[in-house]
Amino acid sequence: MAGPVHYDDLPMNWVGDWAGRRAALTPQRVAIYEAATDTRYTYADMNARANQVGTYLVDGLGLEKGDRVCILTRNRIEAIDLYLACGKTGVILAPLSFRLTKRELDDLLQRIRPRALFYEDVFAELAQSLSLPDCVEETVQIADGDSEYQAAVAAVEARDVNRELSLNDPYLYIHTGGTTATPKVCVVPHRQMLWNSVDIVISASGALGEARELLTFPLFHIGGWNTFTPLFHSGGYQVLMRIFDPGTLLELVEREQITHFGAVEAMLYYIAEHPAFQAAKLDSLKSITSAGAPCAPPAMRPFWERGIAVTQSYGLTEAGPSNFAYGAIDHSLDEVWKHNASIGTSFFHTDYKIVDPETREPVKRGDIGVLCMRSLHNFQEYLDQPDRTEQVFMEGGWVYSSDLAREDAEGYVYIVGRADNMFISGGENVSPEEVEGVLEEHPSVAQAAVIGVPDQRWGEVPMAVLVLNNGYSLDEEALTRYCRGVLAGFKVPKRYAVVDDLPLTGASKLDRKALRARFAQVGESGTA
Amino acid sequence: MAGPVHYDDLPMNWVGDWAGRRAALTPQRVAIYEAATDTRYTYADMNARANQVGTYLVDGLGLEKGDRVCILTRNRIEAIDLYLACGKTGVILAPLSFRLTKRELDDLLQRIRPRALFYEDVFAELAQSLSLPDCVEETVQIADGDSEYQAAVAAVEARDVNRELSLNDPYLYIHTGGTTATPKVCVVPHRQMLWNSVDIVISASGALGEARELLTFPLFHIGGWNTFTPLFHSGGYQVLMRIFDPGTLLELVEREQITHFGAVEAMLYYIAEHPAFQAAKLDSLKSITSAGAPCAPPAMRPFWERGIAVTQSYGLTEAGPSNFAYGAIDHSLDEVWKHNASIGTSFFHTDYKIVDPETREPVKRGDIGVLCMRSLHNFQEYLDQPDRTEQVFMEGGWVYSSDLAREDAEGYVYIVGRADNMFISGGENVSPEEVEGVLEEHPSVAQAAVIGVPDQRWGEVPMAVLVLNNGYSLDEEALTRYCRGVLAGFKVPKRYAVVDDLPLTGASKLDRKALRARFAQVGESGTA
Repeated sequence: MAGPVHYDDLPMNWVGDWAGRRAALTPQRVAIYEAATDTRYTYADMNARANQVGTYLVDGLGLEKGDRVCILTRNRIEAIDLYLACGKTGVILAPLSFRLTKRELDDLLQRIRPRALFYEDVFAELAQSLSLPDCVEETVQIADGDSEYQAAVAAVEARDVNRELSLNDPYLYIHTGGTTATPKVCVVPHRQMLWNSVDIVISASGALGEARELLTFPLFHIGGWNTFTPLFHSGGYQVLMRIFDPGTLLELVEREQITHFGAVEAMLYYIAEHPAFQAAKLDSLKSITSAGAPCAPPAMRPFWERGIAVTQSYGLTEAGPSNFAYGAIDHSLDEVWKHNASIGTSFFHTDYKIVDPETREPVKRGDIGVLCMRSLHNFQEYLDQPDRTEQVFMEGGWVYSSDLAREDAEGYVYIVGRADNMFISGGENVSPEEVEGVLEEHPSVAQAAVIGVPDQRWGEVPMAVLVLNNGYSLDEEALTRYCRGVLAGFKVPKRYAVVDDLPLTGASKLDRKALRARFAQVGESGTA
Repeated sequence: MAGPVHYDDLPMNWVGDWAGRRAALTPQRVAIYEAATDTRYTYADMNARANQVGTYLVDGLGLEKGDRVCILTRNRIEAIDLYLACGKTGVILAPLSFRLTKRELDDLLQRIRPRALFYEDVFAELAQSLSLPDCVEETVQIADGDSEYQAAVAAVEARDVNRELSLNDPYLYIHTGGTTATPKVCVVPHRQMLWNSVDIVISASGALGEARELLTFPLFHIGGWNTFTPLFHSGGYQVLMRIFDPGTLLELVEREQITHFGAVEAMLYYIAEHPAFQAAKLDSLKSITSAGAPCAPPAMRPFWERGIAVTQSYGLTEAGPSNFAYGAIDHSLDEVWKHNASIGTSFFHTDYKIVDPETREPVKRGDIGVLCMRSLHNFQEYLDQPDRTEQVFMEGGWVYSSDLAREDAEGYVYIVGRADNMFISGGENVSPEEVEGVLEEHPSVAQAAVIGVPDQRWGEVPMAVLVLNNGYSLDEEALTRYCRGVLAGFKVPKRYAVVDDLPLTGASKLDRKALRARFAQVGESGTA
């Protein structure tokens, strides 16, 4: 053609061929240590494997660009091989959670319409129970040793399988949890994986090339791929653990001299409560990044006490998957601890703003609003759900997170709750989660839930539904006085109720709908 | 709008606001040490300065997005400030070489049409001699201490001046040398500076964040900005030297514990020949990257003998500015020395191919052809020269370099000459530079030039025009035998001539045109 091209469409090789580029630049470095099989793979090995598996996908299975394959496995080298092979060939990888039920998986398979399903032997029963749609031509079992999968892959003669792809070609289909509604399937293009990796690498200011990372998140969530990809991009070293287990983790940190891992709050509790924790040598471990949801200080403290910085991160599959981190770079442990409730600031290449959910205009610094982000790693769309896609994108390429956030005077950002839970009292936005956090720091309160209840004067007012600690009874006056000391007046509960247990959803989250149904008519405080 | 956006056009802030992002992530790190004024600037300082200068550009001078400013300065902090300020505001920075004549600068100013010209006091005479076009509303002198420039910048009240820009908005106008033809002006978009930086950072596998770099290239060439930008992106430390001087360089390497610098071949000779070289402590210096043109082993050797790896890089303003480097990562000094004639492999995010100049199809590995590259850091166009732009771009976003290259079996790439110099003998491509390199290793030969001369049987055949070493006379048979030992038959000279001096162009390069005019009619060998 000649003349400048349109760079979204530049036909090149993206994340899948990073194996090829690393094999050219740092062939002999170890990319992955698979603990379960005690095997080390160099970057040259990983490229050879990706080409072997890619050739199997293309020549063996006849898969075209845009075809889908599903995997139902724990974290194992074959899942990584398939990720890279799909990336080279333009086949879309759709990992499935082995925590889902047959009903949920059947629904996902109908929507993803894969041509092949790869499952690990430990999930054979679940896999064989599925009602596979007609499009599935192959189901192949992966296992250690001589498996059906290994034989099929070895049967082809490997060649360089790169296909030219544009940045917006889809790479992954990532399903959400879907506990309350039909799971959404996020279409993740090559652009997103590439750019999120760049953003993480740059924001880490060079730390990843020398990192020794333990991959703790499952590869059926974006978080797993999002740990793997920037490390691989940077030429770092990472350790693959089949599935999270605190004892194995402690052993691997010590033996493999791990410098960093990511964790959700519950994992931190499991690790610190493990009998081996106190005796484990953790000197190599510089930091842990918590992800997935806000992490409470008690979960962090045992690590802090051993000189390991635990910091929070934040992201959204639709906008990230990673967008914020409290980077401990250049900060003392004490400084970092002081801000342990913060998700820090956005990554180098991520813009953010905090907006009023009604007007969509930025709120004043310090006020609570909805966190919006934009970057070159926005996702593409929800599969077959244009209306939901439409809702999540705003003008100018912004993604509306529906998460409430606040930025302090120094620029530290805090997540305070969900916009869906927010209510308006006298024209002011109230985030129940913020008030609940304050109430739960009062000695009398074991658990708190806050909802908006009708009020003639203010429209709605906050009502606190409490589970009290043993030996305490409800003292509304004391609680109100306490809240007034730390919260703006409009956030202070005007009504109280005490319950034995708070209602939970199937996913063990607070069931605010049930609470509202029960207390919406309450005209004044009382014990329900 | 809602719905996915077109990512080439995502309205964000690019390289200019990296000052802002670094100020958020690593505010207290020192970004730049300006040796001439003995001043250190943190990333927070750099952002404050960029906003101050940006406010001056926008509020003080009324500059709009797309307006141009020219600078005529050595490497000083004010040039960096203007680069970042232009980057934040969408103003285009057009650095001018102070090595050009009034006539050349007048021509460039007519084509660039800047609204302001900033010049350093040491170039006042040159600047004041220029015939400025009407568009130039301001000429401002920059100097140490209280200058006209400083007063003007300080007169505005700084604010956050970021303007939303798309990736393809132009950032820099970079002129080429223009020794033989009208200089071309390369339009360098934000996309190019961003992506070349990403490519360098990733290819360096994390080394830049901890680097202590000495910026040796002038900021009127892309090479200077291309050293500055990835270091700044990564949060590294760099030292600014007003102008290259071997004595100052040796002093700064020792005092500032420099780990790396870039150099052209001539700089290496100057440094190694400097009286202070032998005594200088260079322990911190791990590597030197040569750029600009192939670098001969004798220029590298004095550094190798001191344990410093000198490696070659390659790039093109149109495709890079950087595209290849021989990365010394993970290699022993001996391994690197073995490949010191190679430019290594392409950067992580750069594709390359070596094509036949006639068919534009890839040549066999090992054969010589024209090096073509493609990446997200292709340049945009030559200013006002659509025909030349058309010539340099090929289908699929490839940039045609006109440089001849060869790739060996291990994947190391070598630059062997210019396609313009190539000729065809019996259907085979001959690169004169390759044959010249072989001849110049023969003890009798001081300098060699090779041209194609007419031949009835082969169309053209190689003719060698030689300057002999003292005490030698032309022995055609011996030279032919020697060449046959290392070159394919069609590359071996069929005719010879001896001259006292080879003709040179104004830019001290071999004048092949003059040679061809003189020897094209030579039917057989002889002494001219």
